[in-house]
Order: sequence, then C-alpha cells, then structure tokens
Amino acid sequence: MRALISVSDKTGIVEFAQKLVAQGWDILSTGGTARALREAEVPVRDVSEITGFPECLDGRVKTLHPLVHGGILNIRSNEEHQKQCAELGIENIDLLVINLYPFKNTMMKDGVAFEDCIENIDIGGPTMLRSAAKNFNDVTVVVDPADYATVLEEIEDEGYTTYQTRYNLALKVFETTAAYDTMISDYLRGHVEKDLLAEDKVTFTYEKVQDLRYGENPHQKAAFYKEIGKNVGTLTSAVQLQGKELSYNNINDTNGSLEILKEYRDEPTIVAVKHANPCGVASADTIAAAYKKAYEADPTSIFGGIIASNGEIDGDTARQMVEIFLEVIVAPGFTDEAKAILSAKENLRLLVLEDILHNEPGYETKKVMGGLLVQERDTRDYEKLEVVTDRAPSDAEMADLLFAWKAVKNTKSNAITLAKDKCLVANGPGQVNRIWPMESCVEHGGDRCKGAVMASDAFFPFDDVCKAAAAAGITAIIQPGGAGRDADSIKVCNAHNIAMVFTGMRHFKHS
Amino acid sequence: MRALISVSDKTGIVEFAQKLVAQGWDILSTGGTARALREAEVPVRDVSEITGFPECLDGRVKTLHPLVHGGILNIRSNEEHQKQCAELGIENIDLLVINLYPFKNTMMKDGVAFEDCIENIDIGGPTMLRSAAKNFNDVTVVVDPADYATVLEEIEDEGYTTYQTRYNLALKVFETTAAYDTMISDYLRGHVEKDLLAEDKVTFTYEKVQDLRYGENPHQKAAFYKEIGKNVGTLTSAVQLQGKELSYNNINDTNGSLEILKEYRDEPTIVAVKHANPCGVASADTIAAAYKKAYEADPTSIFGGIIASNGEIDGDTARQMVEIFLEVIVAPGFTDEAKAILSAKENLRLLVLEDILHNEPGYETKKVMGGLLVQERDTRDYEKLEVVTDRAPSDAEMADLLFAWKAVKNTKSNAITLAKDKCLVANGPGQVNRIWPMESCVEHGGDRCKGAVMASDAFFPFDDVCKAAAAAGITAIIQPGGAGRDADSIKVCNAHNIAMVFTGMRHFKHS
Repeated sequence: MRALISVSDKTGIVEFAQKLVAQGWDILSTGGTARALREAEVPVRDVSEITGFPECLDGRVKTLHPLVHGGILNIRSNEEHQKQCAELGIENIDLLVINLYPFKNTMMKDGVAFEDCIENIDIGGPTMLRSAAKNFNDVTVVVDPADYATVLEEIEDEGYTTYQTRYNLALKVFETTAAYDTMISDYLRGHVEKDLLAEDKVTFTYEKVQDLRYGENPHQKAAFYKEIGKNVGTLTSAVQLQGKELSYNNINDTNGSLEILKEYRDEPTIVAVKHANPCGVASADTIAAAYKKAYEADPTSIFGGIIASNGEIDGDTARQMVEIFLEVIVAPGFTDEAKAILSAKENLRLLVLEDILHNEPGYETKKVMGGLLVQERDTRDYEKLEVVTDRAPSDAEMADLLFAWKAVKNTKSNAITLAKDKCLVANGPGQVNRIWPMESCVEHGGDRCKGAVMASDAFFPFDDVCKAAAAAGITAIIQPGGAGRDADSIKVCNAHNIAMVFTGMRHFKHS
Repeated sequence: MRALISVSDKTGIVEFAQKLVAQGWDILSTGGTARALREAEVPVRDVSEITGFPECLDGRVKTLHPLVHGGILNIRSNEEHQKQCAELGIENIDLLVINLYPFKNTMMKDGVAFEDCIENIDIGGPTMLRSAAKNFNDVTVVVDPADYATVLEEIEDEGYTTYQTRYNLALKVFETTAAYDTMISDYLRGHVEKDLLAEDKVTFTYEKVQDLRYGENPHQKAAFYKEIGKNVGTLTSAVQLQGKELSYNNINDTNGSLEILKEYRDEPTIVAVKHANPCGVASADTIAAAYKKAYEADPTSIFGGIIASNGEIDGDTARQMVEIFLEVIVAPGFTDEAKAILSAKENLRLLVLEDILHNEPGYETKKVMGGLLVQERDTRDYEKLEVVTDRAPSDAEMADLLFAWKAVKNTKSNAITLAKDKCLVANGPGQVNRIWPMESCVEHGGDRCKGAVMASDAFFPFDDVCKAAAAAGITAIIQPGGAGRDADSIKVCNAHNIAMVFTGMRHFKHS
C-alpha cells in the first residue's frame, strides 16, 4: 500500500509515517514534509519521482499530475481502469494525508499583504483531497491530525480502514474544502468591500465554539459557532471568569444585551435583558450608580436577567449585584474586589469582553424554513431630529428621548419605551399592535410615567397612543413619523403641551 | 492568447468561441465541448494534445496535468517562472471557461443512485477554476455563461480583460466552489443521516430567490435566499398569484404563519400573524367558518396581518377577507371564485403553497454578532399529558388545551395564550416576566376569558399566574410544570376547580 503525505501542520506526522512503514507501506511526499520525514529516517520518495515532472513555479505546481491523480482516482474493482493504469504506469495511492496551506492564519494576520494571501491559496492540496474523497470507496483521506489514531488503528488491526471511516473522512474533506473556499471568497469580497447581497449564491462558514447542553429548550440539540476572524467586541471573543457554562438562551440574551449596550457609548451604562428584550437600562456618572438606577426602576424583571456594562465592574456595583439572582454579567473588566464579591455566587457567569463597544457593520441573517433572509445590520440611528409640535423638547427631554430611542430600537416590535432621567421606566416589547405596549408601559411604569418621555419604534397609525401618553403624563415623544394621520397625533400632543420629534427612520426588530 | 473551454451548459459557447477565434485566439477543449465546437467548425485542439497524456479512467483524469496547470498558474511577470515554462514546454492558458458537472441536478433527482451522485463530483473542473482564480492577475476565468458578454466585450475592445473584471470573476469562482463543496458535504451528511452538530465546522450555502426592496427597515439592504433542494412546504416553493412583491417582513411573518399552521393538521384552520406572533387562530368545520372565528376573536389585530390557511380558500372565505386590509394570504389553493373576489385587492399577495403542512425536521440558526447558534427545530409537542389537579379537564377542555398549546409554542417567549372552542381568545407574547402577558391576555380577552383555557410556554415560578387565571374565569391550564413551587400553583387551581395538565416539555421561542 502507498501513502502520500504532505502537511503544513507536522504534529505527529513522523510517528504516523513510521507506523505506516512498519506496516509495510510506501511513503510519497513533497517539500518540507519529505525533509522532516527523512530527518527522522523515514524512507520517503518524492512525488516528482513518480511524475517524472519537477516541482515548479515556486511550488505552485507539484502534485497536479495524472500519475498522482490516476493513482488516487482509479476504481480498484474496475477492470478497464486497472488495464489503463497498467498501460499508463499509474501506481495506486491508497492513503492521502494532507493539511491545507494556512490561508486562515495568513488572512487573519494584521497588515498582511494581499499578494501573500493570494499566494497562500492552496491549489494542489484541495485537489488531492477532493480526488481521494470522491474515490473514498478505495482511498483513505486524512485532513485532520485528530484522525491519525483511528486510521492507524484500523490499518494495524484490519490491514486497511473501514468503509464507514473512509466515508466520514471524505465528508470531512468536503466540509473542509467548502469552508476553505468560503474563507477565500469572504476575503476577496472584503478586500474590495463588495456587497454580499449582490451575489447570486451566498455561503457562510463557522467554526464550533462549544457544544451546548441543549437549545432554546431541553429537547433541542444545539451548538455555538463563530465566524472566522470577525469576533472583536462579540461574545465569541469573551473570556469567562467563573460560573456555569453558557446556555443557548444565555448566549442569545447576552448577545442581545451587547447589541443594546453598543448604543450607549458616552456615559457609564448598565443594560439588563430578559428574553433578549431590555428590561432595565440606565446611564449615570458611575457604573455603580447606573446599576442602582436600572435595578430600582424594575426590581422584578431584572431577576434572572443578563447584565451588560460598558465600564469595569467595581466593588460597589458587585455588592449590589450579589443581592439578587442574575444569569450573566458581561463587562470590559472586573476589579479584584468585584471578582472576590461575585465569586460568592459560583454559578453566576462573569464574562470579560474587551472592546465591548466595538460595533462592526455587516450582515445579519434570519433563518426561515427552506431559506434565509439576509440584511444589513441596523447600525444607523435616525435620519433627522425634527420637532413637529408647538413646543420643542427641553435639553433634558431631548437627552431622554435619544436615550429611549436607543432602547426602543433594540426592543422587539411593536415596541414602546418610556424613560426618564436616562433610565428605562417601562418597556413594551413584541406586541401585535401599537396601543397595547403603550398600555402595558403605563400600567407597569405607574407613577414613574409622569414626566417621562416615550419612544416608539414605528409611526402611530392613529392618535390613540398620543392620547394615552397625555393621560399618563408623558412630556415628550420620539417616533419615526410618516403615518397618514400624523396630523392627528401632532394635534393631540399640542393640546397637551407634549413635545414630539420625528426621526424619519423606523427600527423594526423581530429577532 | 489561448482559451481552454470545457462546459456542461453549452448555451452560447459556440458563438463565444467563434468570436475568440476571430480575435486570433487558440482554443483548447475536452470531450463533449470539443465535439460541439468542431461541429460548428471552430478550430479546436484537445487538451490531451497539450499534455501528451490520454484522457483516462472514464474521464476522471483529463486536465489534471502540470502542462495545463503550469499554463494557468505561472506568473507572467516572473522571470524565473517564464524560464521554467520555456524549459518544461508549458504554454500559457489565458482564459478558462468552465461549468461544473451538474452535481446539484443529479443530487436533487428522485431516486438517483448514490454511485451516480459520487461519479458526478467534478474534480478537474474545480481545480482548473481554482488555479485560474488564484492567478486572476494574469488569467481570466468564466464559470457563469452570464459573464460571456462582458469578457468578450473587453477582449474585443481592449485586447484583454480588466483587472477589476478578473478580480470579480475570481471571487465568483471561489463562491461557486464553496457552494459546490457545501452541496456535496450536505449530500454526504444527509445520505447517512449524520448530525450536523457533530461537526467542528459548518458551512451553509444558499441561492438567491430575490433582491428585496429593503430589510426589516427601509435603511437596511436585504435579499432572500433558498436552501438547495429542501423547499417542500416552505415559502421558497410558494407560487405568487397576485399582489405586490413580498417584503422582508412579509417573508418573516409568512414563514411564522406557516410554522404555526403546520401544528394544526386535523381540522380546517386559519392562522393570522402580526410581527411573527399569532394574533388569531381558529379551527372549524370549514375554512370559511375558521376564518370567521379567527376574525371575530380579535378584529383589531388581524388588520394588516398575514393569513395562513391549511385548506383551499373558497368564495365564502374570500368574501370575508376582502372586507379588511391584509398583507398576505398563503394557502394550498384558491378556488376560481376566490381568485376573482380577491383580485379586487390588487396589492394583496396571494401565495399558493402545495404540501403546506409538510414539515421537515432539521436545524435552525440564530445569528449573533460574530457567531451563530444552531439548534434542532422544535418539532416535538409534549413529553406527557399529566393531570396534576383534583379535577381532570373535560374532553372539550382538553381539545382546547392542546389547541392553545400549539399556539403558545409558536409565540415569542414569555408567552401566555388563552383559547376557547378551538379559537384564540388572547395571546401575550414576548414579555420579560410571566405575569404581564397573563394580565395582558385578561385585559384584551375581556369577557371571552370566562370559560377559556390557558397555555403557558414555560412553568410558573410563582402561583400568581394561576391566581390571575382563577380571577379571569379560566377553567383549565396547560404548562410544562417542573417549577420548585408547582405545589403552590396546583393548590390555587384546586381551590378554584381549575384543571391543570403538565406537558413535561417547555417551548421557549425567541425569534
């Protein structure tokens, strides 16, 4: 039997080759792998001896030869194939061991030259892998050092690998080449800032971060994956300091908390999230004060919530946090005192995320049955800030309006958000019409609604929401505007001395 | 200049080759393409003339040769490369025109043999494409007949293609090979029913269905894509009879309406959806009666909604539907009378979806920043139906409990659903705690809550929800059970003669 070995990751390769030789196998190799094996006194022939064609063009052409690929691709049980192989001098290659050039490593280096990236695109490697995977019925193909042990064991025990193993290895090859070419196309598209949505086909590749105990519910299996090289300021680059493993819902909610937090860039801000909707948001002079405001605004809903902070968690904040049950706290850092205090809650997940406010544009996807919706992320705020009422908002009102606007933008539609003194008063997410979330906010905000401002993620079809706002003592409103009956709403506001601002930009959010 | 042409889709290829020849180009080709060109009297050389190596192994090895790939991969401005080419007899190939074997077409045929699929995996084609794409600085590569015109025009006008065109063509190659190998790995994984979640890397590929005017909001660009070959019973295989183009939110909501509808398999059922949450669901003896029930239960929220029907829409139903503004109606069919009636609303989107109740298991994905959550779809219903109260539900109550359970399962969490006589009474989606949606349901259900049943997607941490149910006149409750204080909730139910059933299965749903 004959193996062709050509690897960039040389871990374990010498031992693997030695054991093959001990089983009577011939070894073919190229370049650096051949040198490494020879240094370890493994008998090796160069591929160029087989092909009678020299390695050329700086290694761009080494294995792209019919005597190599014929040796891989011929069907062993096909008499005509065997006759041709005999006539053409094609010798079988029964095992391929190949890693690809590290395109991913090259691409992800800072400041790497475009030409270096292109030179790192492997042509010969994927071709041999794909040849062998196509002919997996006869040929074993190893693209992952993690599979050396299984392959060796089967060869040592049975003389050759099982069909099942070869099938799984072939599948792994096509998964690898698919991911590899996706990385290359992502790189080429990114390099010229080409719009993904212009393409007729889109392919996305992800690497597993962790298996999850389960999905949204215990009867659903799930796993968490990361994009390749786009992880700054996202959960996939957070470091967990303590606590239980993150669950599916933790990851979803924590991601939601980060999306909201990234809106609040100028002041120390705490965001509390339940079921991916904000249930507490507050800005203040310190993180400890912001947490206190957010907590006191709704001490019920924050129970079991996710907390995101745009500043370091200190002892004062931590002392408040340990008073209730929280699922996750994510922050750019924790003081030693905070860590010591929070360690009392050993299940509480603490995540350190540097660059927590870093916000990439790009695309988000929404899975539907049989398909996928792809859209640009909603990273814009407003088109304008147009006062449409007799009274303009005061500076304090305007600050609260913009504060509430950031929150309502990140609340599931239809959504109404009330805020006062840079603190969420009430939030009404995910309703099937626009008046119910307002009623819900008024009910749960209670007395605190008086003097608060209101934000709506979409326009008001009728004047009922403004009437409810007036009744509740709301003093200012921010909303996109653009409804047929805007005039009715404006009239209600003017009658009650409410200031209203149109943004000209809607922020529906459904998932 | 020299072109190598080898295409399975021969559309326009003769004319393209003739025009290249008119510009003084040499043409290389293989197999069927060479025959087609010769029949059209285009002068062609076989690749085997270049390589001096015959096409062999039933065409498995044709172009995998250093004289081909050296001709593609050599860097024209590199003196050392040019010296080697001269020594080794490598002649430049400046333009590659290749389509891949139709793996997708083969794979998607019913009852196609596994061996035929494997034989259709193209090795030589992707290799030449990738070689040429790597060397796009010097070589033009065309994988899509839609690009013939641009390439020809540039060659005729400028003598050769522009850098920008070659760059875009190279990007298209890697997108194509990535999608191609993703299809192969999906096929191989599906063939042995291997678990996607077991893989360290996952790659997904989609084909564009349509560009969308915009995404969730007008300032977000968006497009809609479909999975390859998994479209039965999904929106990607629906046929639109009339109306405006589907928007991003239409697609999301209509998909949501289909997910809910697929739960109701036994009786004529209408589902109305707003913001992907059910706002009306009713089963009855006929579709017309079901629509009437769903409409009358909440005539407000259904306005501007999406309607899904598990039976044909007839004239009686259509006459009711045209009374209000609806966005989309999706059904397995429409009678001619219904079509005529609904055509009065020319913007109303009518979608015909055969096999509307077909429901594939499989995976769903949730995009988070920098990563992706992947989980099995939630296609199960309950683990058990355990009566935990003194009183067991009557048959009618049990029918309503199961009816409400299907709806609450498909409502965004935290969710409470009330139902009576197989009709939704009220639905409370997307709240940050469990008592608020109950309060919301009671408020909006009004008198109709009396004698209704309640479903909760997750257990009750406290007895407050049961107390609110008792106060509202709810007679039976279905919920997962499993809270520490279940006994408190059971006690409240017994005190009010409410029947309660535990399912042992939670149904959180967040997007």
